[in-house]
Amino acid sequence: MSKVFVDMGISLDGFIAGPNGGQKNPLGDNGLKIHEWMFNQKSFRSHLGMEGGETNNADNDIIENIFNRIGANIMCKKMFIEGEADWPEKAPFNCPVYVLTHQKREPWERPGGATFYFVNEDIHKVLERAKKDAGNKDVRISGGAYVVQQYLNAGLVDELTLHVTPIILGKGVRLFENINKEKLSLEIVEALNSPEVTHLFYKINNVNH
Amino acid sequence: MSKVFVDMGISLDGFIAGPNGGQKNPLGDNGLKIHEWMFNQKSFRSHLGMEGGETNNADNDIIENIFNRIGANIMCKKMFIEGEADWPEKAPFNCPVYVLTHQKREPWERPGGATFYFVNEDIHKVLERAKKDAGNKDVRISGGAYVVQQYLNAGLVDELTLHVTPIILGKGVRLFENINKEKLSLEIVEALNSPEVTHLFYKINNVNH
Repeated sequence: MSKVFVDMGISLDGFIAGPNGGQKNPLGDNGLKIHEWMFNQKSFRSHLGMEGGETNNADNDIIENIFNRIGANIMCKKMFIEGEADWPEKAPFNCPVYVLTHQKREPWERPGGATFYFVNEDIHKVLERAKKDAGNKDVRISGGAYVVQQYLNAGLVDELTLHVTPIILGKGVRLFENINKEKLSLEIVEALNSPEVTHLFYKINNVNH
Repeated sequence: MSKVFVDMGISLDGFIAGPNGGQKNPLGDNGLKIHEWMFNQKSFRSHLGMEGGETNNADNDIIENIFNRIGANIMCKKMFIEGEADWPEKAPFNCPVYVLTHQKREPWERPGGATFYFVNEDIHKVLERAKKDAGNKDVRISGGAYVVQQYLNAGLVDELTLHVTPIILGKGVRLFENINKEKLSLEIVEALNSPEVTHLFYKINNVNH
Protein backbone atom coordinates (compact mmCIF):
# COMPACT_ATOMS: atom_id res chain seq x y z
CA MET A 1 0.00 0.00 0.00
CA SER A 2 1.13 3.50 -0.73
CA LYS A 3 2.88 5.21 2.20
CA VAL A 4 3.23 8.80 3.29
CA PHE A 5 6.75 9.59 4.42
CA VAL A 6 8.94 12.38 5.72
CA ASP A 7 12.62 12.22 4.89
CA MET A 8 14.79 15.06 6.16
CA GLY A 9 18.42 16.00 6.55
CA ILE A 10 19.00 17.39 10.04
CA SER A 11 21.90 18.67 12.12
CA LEU A 12 22.79 16.91 15.35
CA ASP A 13 21.18 19.77 17.26
CA GLY A 14 17.88 19.40 15.39
CA PHE A 15 17.93 22.03 12.65
CA ILE A 16 16.82 21.34 9.08
CA ALA A 17 17.97 24.78 7.87
CA GLY A 18 20.09 27.63 9.13
CA PRO A 19 18.82 31.12 9.96
CA ASN A 20 18.19 33.88 7.39
CA GLY A 21 16.93 31.55 4.66
CA GLY A 22 15.33 32.90 1.49
CA GLN A 23 15.52 32.88 -2.28
CA LYS A 24 19.07 34.23 -2.25
CA ASN A 25 20.18 32.07 0.66
CA PRO A 26 18.57 28.64 0.21
CA LEU A 27 18.54 26.58 3.43
CA GLY A 28 19.86 29.56 5.36
CA ASP A 29 23.31 30.22 6.82
CA ASN A 30 25.34 26.99 6.83
CA GLY A 31 22.19 25.06 5.93
CA LEU A 32 23.74 23.39 2.89
CA LYS A 33 26.22 21.67 5.24
CA ILE A 34 23.33 19.49 6.43
CA HIS A 35 23.12 17.92 2.97
CA GLU A 36 26.80 17.73 2.02
CA TRP A 37 26.82 13.94 2.40
CA MET A 38 24.49 13.74 -0.64
CA PHE A 39 26.36 15.94 -3.06
CA ASN A 40 29.04 13.40 -4.01
CA GLN A 41 26.66 10.50 -4.41
CA LYS A 42 25.94 9.37 -7.95
CA SER A 43 22.25 8.75 -7.25
CA PHE A 44 21.78 12.35 -6.13
CA ARG A 45 23.87 13.87 -8.92
CA SER A 46 22.16 11.88 -11.66
CA HIS A 47 18.74 13.12 -10.53
CA LEU A 48 20.00 16.66 -11.02
CA GLY A 49 21.44 15.77 -14.41
CA MET A 50 25.03 15.93 -13.16
CA GLU A 51 27.68 13.39 -14.02
CA GLY A 52 30.03 11.47 -11.74
CA GLY A 53 29.69 10.70 -8.08
CA GLU A 54 30.28 7.78 -5.78
CA THR A 55 28.48 4.47 -6.01
CA ASN A 56 28.62 1.23 -4.13
CA ASN A 57 27.97 2.60 -0.66
CA ALA A 58 25.00 2.68 1.67
CA ASP A 59 24.47 6.45 1.38
CA ASN A 60 24.15 6.23 -2.38
CA ASP A 61 21.72 3.31 -2.15
CA ILE A 62 19.57 5.10 0.43
CA ILE A 63 19.22 8.16 -1.83
CA GLU A 64 18.38 5.95 -4.81
CA ASN A 65 15.71 4.13 -2.80
CA ILE A 66 14.13 7.42 -1.77
CA PHE A 67 13.96 8.74 -5.33
CA ASN A 68 12.54 5.45 -6.58
CA ARG A 69 9.70 5.34 -4.08
CA ILE A 70 8.39 8.87 -4.58
CA GLY A 71 5.21 9.12 -6.63
CA ALA A 72 4.28 12.66 -5.56
CA ASN A 73 5.64 15.43 -3.32
CA ILE A 74 4.03 18.01 -1.07
CA MET A 75 5.96 21.12 -0.03
CA CYS A 76 5.44 24.64 1.25
CA LYS A 77 5.77 27.80 -0.78
CA LYS A 78 8.98 28.83 1.00
CA MET A 79 10.73 25.62 0.02
CA PHE A 80 9.58 26.05 -3.55
CA ILE A 81 10.81 29.65 -3.69
CA GLU A 82 14.19 28.74 -2.22
CA GLY A 83 14.58 25.85 -4.62
CA GLU A 84 13.10 27.41 -7.76
CA ALA A 85 16.10 29.61 -8.44
CA ASP A 86 18.65 26.85 -7.94
CA TRP A 87 17.03 23.81 -9.46
CA PRO A 88 18.48 23.26 -12.91
CA GLU A 89 16.42 22.57 -16.04
CA LYS A 90 15.94 19.05 -14.76
CA ALA A 91 14.53 19.62 -11.27
CA PRO A 92 15.32 16.94 -8.65
CA PHE A 93 11.72 15.74 -8.97
CA ASN A 94 10.31 13.51 -11.67
CA CYS A 95 6.71 13.42 -10.53
CA PRO A 96 3.96 15.81 -9.40
CA VAL A 97 4.86 18.36 -6.72
CA TYR A 98 2.07 20.04 -4.77
CA VAL A 99 3.05 23.47 -3.46
CA LEU A 100 0.89 24.72 -0.59
CA THR A 101 0.34 28.42 -1.21
CA HIS A 102 -2.24 31.17 -1.27
CA GLN A 103 -0.79 32.41 -4.54
CA LYS A 104 -2.77 31.51 -7.66
CA ARG A 105 -0.55 30.20 -10.41
CA GLU A 106 -0.93 27.85 -13.36
CA PRO A 107 0.77 24.44 -13.12
CA TRP A 108 4.45 24.67 -14.04
CA GLU A 109 5.72 21.75 -16.07
CA ARG A 110 9.42 20.94 -15.99
CA PRO A 111 11.55 18.69 -18.18
CA GLY A 112 12.01 15.29 -16.56
CA GLY A 113 8.44 14.72 -15.45
CA ALA A 114 7.94 17.17 -12.59
CA THR A 115 4.84 19.33 -12.67
CA PHE A 116 4.36 21.84 -9.87
CA TYR A 117 0.74 22.40 -8.82
CA PHE A 118 0.02 25.46 -6.69
CA VAL A 119 -2.79 24.61 -4.29
CA ASN A 120 -4.65 26.44 -1.56
CA GLU A 121 -6.60 23.57 -0.03
CA ASP A 122 -6.91 21.63 3.21
CA ILE A 123 -3.86 19.41 3.78
CA HIS A 124 -6.05 16.29 3.79
CA LYS A 125 -7.38 17.13 0.33
CA VAL A 126 -3.92 17.88 -1.03
CA LEU A 127 -2.74 14.51 0.27
CA GLU A 128 -5.68 12.78 -1.41
CA ARG A 129 -4.70 14.32 -4.74
CA ALA A 130 -1.03 13.42 -4.23
CA LYS A 131 -1.93 9.82 -3.32
CA LYS A 132 -4.02 9.49 -6.44
CA ASP A 133 -1.09 10.70 -8.54
CA ALA A 134 1.37 8.45 -6.75
CA GLY A 135 -0.54 5.26 -7.48
CA ASN A 136 1.46 2.39 -6.03
CA LYS A 137 4.35 4.67 -5.18
CA ASP A 138 4.65 6.78 -2.02
CA VAL A 139 3.94 10.39 -1.17
CA ARG A 140 6.76 12.44 0.29
CA ILE A 141 6.06 15.37 2.57
CA SER A 142 9.15 17.27 1.47
CA GLY A 143 9.13 20.26 3.80
CA GLY A 144 9.58 22.76 5.21
CA ALA A 145 9.28 22.17 8.89
CA TYR A 146 5.82 23.73 9.26
CA VAL A 147 4.29 21.51 6.57
CA VAL A 148 5.90 18.42 8.10
CA GLN A 149 4.56 19.43 11.52
CA GLN A 150 1.05 19.90 10.11
CA TYR A 151 1.03 16.45 8.52
CA LEU A 152 2.57 14.79 11.60
CA ASN A 153 0.00 16.43 13.89
CA ALA A 154 -2.84 15.37 11.60
CA GLY A 155 -1.71 11.75 11.97
CA LEU A 156 -1.14 11.39 8.24
CA VAL A 157 2.52 10.30 8.13
CA ASP A 158 3.52 6.61 8.13
CA GLU A 159 7.30 6.82 8.15
CA LEU A 160 9.96 9.26 9.29
CA THR A 161 13.57 9.10 8.15
CA LEU A 162 16.23 11.46 9.48
CA HIS A 163 19.70 11.85 8.01
CA VAL A 164 21.68 13.25 10.92
CA THR A 165 24.89 15.09 10.03
CA PRO A 166 27.50 15.45 12.78
CA ILE A 167 27.37 19.23 12.89
CA ILE A 168 26.03 21.80 15.32
CA LEU A 169 24.21 24.69 13.64
CA GLY A 170 23.23 26.53 16.81
CA LYS A 171 20.47 28.51 15.11
CA GLY A 172 17.92 27.97 12.39
CA VAL A 173 14.72 26.11 11.67
CA ARG A 174 13.90 23.22 14.01
CA LEU A 175 12.05 20.19 12.66
CA PHE A 176 10.44 19.23 15.96
CA GLU A 177 8.42 22.15 17.20
CA ASN A 178 4.72 22.40 17.96
CA ILE A 179 4.39 18.64 17.72
CA ASN A 180 1.33 17.05 19.32
CA LYS A 181 3.49 14.62 21.26
CA GLU A 182 0.61 12.66 22.77
CA LYS A 183 -0.46 11.48 19.35
CA LEU A 184 2.93 10.79 17.79
CA SER A 185 4.12 7.26 18.56
CA LEU A 186 7.47 6.50 16.95
CA GLU A 187 8.82 3.00 16.48
CA ILE A 188 12.51 2.46 15.78
CA VAL A 189 13.10 0.51 12.58
CA GLU A 190 16.84 0.83 12.01
CA ALA A 191 19.90 3.02 12.42
CA LEU A 192 22.72 3.00 9.87
CA ASN A 193 25.79 5.15 9.49
CA SER A 194 28.55 6.06 7.10
CA PRO A 195 31.50 8.28 8.03
CA GLU A 196 29.45 11.31 6.85
CA VAL A 197 25.91 10.77 8.10
CA THR A 198 23.66 8.68 10.34
CA HIS A 199 20.34 7.45 8.95
CA LEU A 200 17.53 6.93 11.46
CA PHE A 201 14.45 5.09 10.21
CA TYR A 202 11.21 5.29 12.19
CA LYS A 203 7.73 3.93 11.67
CA ILE A 204 4.88 6.08 12.96
CA ASN A 205 1.97 4.45 14.74
CA ASN A 206 -0.76 7.03 14.46
CA VAL A 207 -3.59 6.70 16.91
CA ASN A 208 -6.16 8.01 14.49
CA HIS A 209 -4.65 6.75 11.26
CA MET B 1 45.22 6.70 27.52
CA SER B 2 42.47 7.91 29.77
CA LYS B 3 39.56 9.56 27.91
CA VAL B 4 37.04 12.21 28.85
CA PHE B 5 33.56 11.32 27.67
CA VAL B 6 29.99 12.54 27.67
CA ASP B 7 27.26 9.93 27.60
CA MET B 8 23.68 11.18 27.64
CA GLY B 9 20.16 9.94 27.14
CA ILE B 10 18.27 12.33 24.90
CA SER B 11 14.83 12.61 23.32
CA LEU B 12 14.53 12.70 19.54
CA ASP B 13 13.86 16.42 19.76
CA GLY B 14 17.05 17.07 21.71
CA PHE B 15 16.02 17.26 25.37
CA ILE B 16 17.95 15.57 28.18
CA ALA B 17 15.32 16.45 30.78
CA GLY B 18 11.78 17.72 30.86
CA PRO B 19 10.66 21.09 32.23
CA ASN B 20 10.08 21.84 35.93
CA GLY B 21 12.92 19.63 37.20
CA GLY B 22 13.99 19.70 40.83
CA GLN B 23 14.54 17.59 43.91
CA LYS B 24 10.91 16.47 43.95
CA ASN B 25 10.73 16.01 40.19
CA PRO B 26 14.04 14.50 39.06
CA LEU B 27 14.65 14.92 35.32
CA GLY B 28 11.54 17.09 35.03
CA ASP B 29 8.13 16.32 33.54
CA ASN B 30 8.33 13.14 31.45
CA GLY B 31 12.12 13.21 31.74
CA LEU B 32 12.36 9.67 33.10
CA LYS B 33 10.93 8.42 29.80
CA ILE B 34 14.26 9.30 28.20
CA HIS B 35 15.94 6.60 30.26
CA GLU B 36 13.27 3.91 30.28
CA TRP B 37 15.33 1.70 27.95
CA MET B 38 17.85 1.27 30.79
CA PHE B 39 15.55 0.32 33.63
CA ASN B 40 15.00 -3.29 32.56
CA GLN B 41 18.65 -4.00 31.82
CA LYS B 42 20.50 -6.18 34.29
CA SER B 43 23.69 -4.12 34.06
CA PHE B 44 21.83 -0.98 35.12
CA ARG B 45 19.80 -2.68 37.84
CA SER B 46 22.79 -4.44 39.37
CA HIS B 47 24.63 -1.11 39.73
CA LEU B 48 21.70 0.15 41.78
CA GLY B 49 21.68 -3.01 43.85
CA MET B 50 18.47 -4.26 42.22
CA GLU B 51 17.91 -7.83 41.11
CA GLY B 52 16.69 -9.16 37.77
CA GLY B 53 16.74 -7.53 34.39
CA GLU B 54 17.50 -8.48 30.84
CA THR B 55 20.85 -9.68 29.61
CA ASN B 56 22.26 -10.82 26.33
CA ASN B 57 21.36 -7.75 24.28
CA ALA B 58 23.28 -4.79 22.95
CA ASP B 59 21.62 -2.26 25.28
CA ASN B 60 22.69 -4.21 28.34
CA ASP B 61 26.25 -4.56 27.05
CA ILE B 62 26.51 -0.86 26.26
CA ILE B 63 25.47 0.07 29.81
CA GLU B 64 27.95 -2.43 31.26
CA ASN B 65 30.76 -0.99 29.13
CA ILE B 66 29.98 2.53 30.30
CA PHE B 67 30.01 1.57 33.97
CA ASN B 68 33.24 -0.38 33.54
CA ARG B 69 35.14 2.47 31.92
CA ILE B 70 34.30 5.18 34.45
CA GLY B 71 37.09 6.05 36.87
CA ALA B 72 35.63 9.38 38.02
CA ASN B 73 32.55 11.55 37.38
CA ILE B 74 31.98 15.28 37.18
CA MET B 75 28.49 16.72 37.61
CA CYS B 76 26.67 19.91 38.49
CA LYS B 77 24.99 20.65 41.80
CA LYS B 78 21.51 20.44 40.27
CA MET B 79 22.09 16.90 39.06
CA PHE B 80 23.42 15.92 42.47
CA ILE B 81 20.43 17.43 44.25
CA GLU B 82 17.94 15.74 41.93
CA GLY B 83 19.72 12.41 42.32
CA GLU B 84 20.58 12.56 46.01
CA ALA B 85 17.05 11.92 47.17
CA ASP B 86 16.47 9.00 44.84
CA TRP B 87 19.76 7.17 44.81
CA PRO B 88 19.53 4.18 47.11
CA GLU B 89 22.12 3.24 49.70
CA LYS B 90 24.28 1.98 46.87
CA ALA B 91 24.46 4.97 44.54
CA PRO B 92 24.88 4.22 40.82
CA PHE B 93 28.52 5.33 41.12
CA ASN B 94 31.40 3.27 42.43
CA CYS B 95 34.14 5.85 42.09
CA PRO B 96 34.80 9.53 42.92
CA VAL B 97 32.15 12.05 41.89
CA TYR B 98 33.08 15.72 41.68
CA VAL B 99 30.11 18.03 42.22
CA LEU B 100 30.63 21.55 40.90
CA THR B 101 29.09 23.87 43.47
CA HIS B 102 29.63 27.04 45.46
CA GLN B 103 28.35 25.27 48.55
CA LYS B 104 31.00 24.16 51.04
CA ARG B 105 30.49 20.62 52.21
CA GLU B 106 32.65 17.78 53.47
CA PRO B 107 33.16 14.79 51.16
CA TRP B 108 30.24 12.38 51.35
CA GLU B 109 31.23 8.75 51.27
CA ARG B 110 28.70 6.19 50.09
CA PRO B 111 28.65 2.41 50.31
CA GLY B 112 29.93 0.86 47.09
CA GLY B 113 32.91 3.10 46.54
CA ALA B 114 31.40 6.43 45.55
CA THR B 115 32.70 9.50 47.35
CA PHE B 116 31.14 12.84 46.43
CA TYR B 117 33.55 15.81 46.53
CA PHE B 118 32.02 19.27 46.52
CA VAL B 119 34.32 21.61 44.62
CA ASN B 120 34.28 25.27 43.64
CA GLU B 121 37.19 25.36 41.21
CA ASP B 122 37.97 26.03 37.58
CA ILE B 123 36.65 23.19 35.36
CA HIS B 124 40.19 22.45 34.10
CA LYS B 125 41.41 21.91 37.66
CA VAL B 126 38.45 19.71 38.54
CA LEU B 127 39.16 17.61 35.46
CA GLU B 128 42.81 17.27 36.50
CA ARG B 129 41.77 15.92 39.88
CA ALA B 130 39.23 13.56 38.29
CA LYS B 131 41.82 12.27 35.82
CA LYS B 132 44.26 11.59 38.61
CA ASP B 133 41.59 9.60 40.46
CA ALA B 134 40.57 7.73 37.32
CA GLY B 135 44.06 6.38 36.58
CA ASN B 136 43.79 4.21 33.51
CA LYS B 137 40.02 4.48 33.48
CA ASP B 138 38.01 7.31 31.91
CA VAL B 139 36.38 10.45 33.25
CA ARG B 140 32.68 10.92 32.60
CA ILE B 141 31.18 14.39 32.39
CA SER B 142 27.82 13.28 33.73
CA GLY B 143 25.72 16.44 33.38
CA GLY B 144 23.69 18.51 33.45
CA ALA B 145 23.60 20.24 30.13
CA TYR B 146 25.42 23.36 31.30
CA VAL B 147 28.41 21.41 32.64
CA VAL B 148 28.58 19.36 29.45
CA GLN B 149 28.47 22.57 27.39
CA GLN B 150 31.27 24.10 29.45
CA TYR B 151 33.53 21.08 28.96
CA LEU B 152 32.69 20.80 25.24
CA ASN B 153 33.40 24.48 24.68
CA ALA B 154 36.69 24.21 26.55
CA GLY B 155 37.76 21.47 24.12
CA LEU B 156 38.17 18.95 26.92
CA VAL B 157 35.88 16.13 25.76
CA ASP B 158 37.16 13.23 23.62
CA GLU B 159 34.00 11.24 23.02
CA LEU B 160 30.27 11.88 22.88
CA THR B 161 27.67 9.14 23.07
CA LEU B 162 23.96 9.85 22.72
CA HIS B 163 21.21 7.36 23.53
CA VAL B 164 18.29 8.67 21.49
CA THR B 165 14.84 7.55 22.61
CA PRO B 166 12.03 7.75 20.05
CA ILE B 167 9.98 10.27 21.97
CA ILE B 168 9.16 13.94 21.56
CA LEU B 169 9.30 15.92 24.81
CA GLY B 170 8.47 19.31 23.32
CA LYS B 171 9.88 21.24 26.28
CA GLY B 172 12.72 20.90 28.71
CA VAL B 173 16.49 21.13 28.92
CA ARG B 174 18.35 21.01 25.62
CA LEU B 175 21.80 19.43 25.46
CA PHE B 176 23.03 21.47 22.51
CA GLU B 177 22.79 25.12 23.40
CA ASN B 178 25.48 27.76 23.60
CA ILE B 179 27.92 25.43 21.85
CA ASN B 180 30.98 27.02 20.25
CA LYS B 181 30.26 25.26 16.97
CA GLU B 182 33.41 26.45 15.20
CA LYS B 183 35.56 24.49 17.62
CA LEU B 184 33.52 21.33 17.92
CA SER B 185 34.41 18.83 15.20
CA LEU B 186 32.44 15.60 15.52
CA GLU B 187 33.42 12.36 13.82
CA ILE B 188 30.89 9.57 13.43
CA VAL B 189 32.09 6.31 14.95
CA GLU B 190 29.01 4.10 14.90
CA ALA B 191 25.23 3.98 15.15
CA LEU B 192 23.44 1.03 16.74
CA ASN B 193 19.83 0.45 17.63
CA SER B 194 17.52 -1.79 19.59
CA PRO B 195 13.73 -1.55 19.46
CA GLU B 196 13.88 0.89 22.40
CA VAL B 197 16.81 3.21 21.72
CA THR B 198 19.39 4.33 19.18
CA HIS B 199 23.01 4.70 20.29
CA LEU B 200 25.11 7.29 18.45
CA PHE B 201 28.85 7.20 19.09
CA TYR B 202 30.98 10.21 18.14
CA LYS B 203 34.65 11.03 18.50
CA ILE B 204 35.49 14.68 19.08
CA ASN B 205 38.42 16.23 17.28
CA ASN B 206 39.22 19.26 19.38
CA VAL B 207 41.23 21.95 17.68
CA ASN B 208 43.00 22.94 20.87
CA HIS B 209 43.12 19.59 22.58
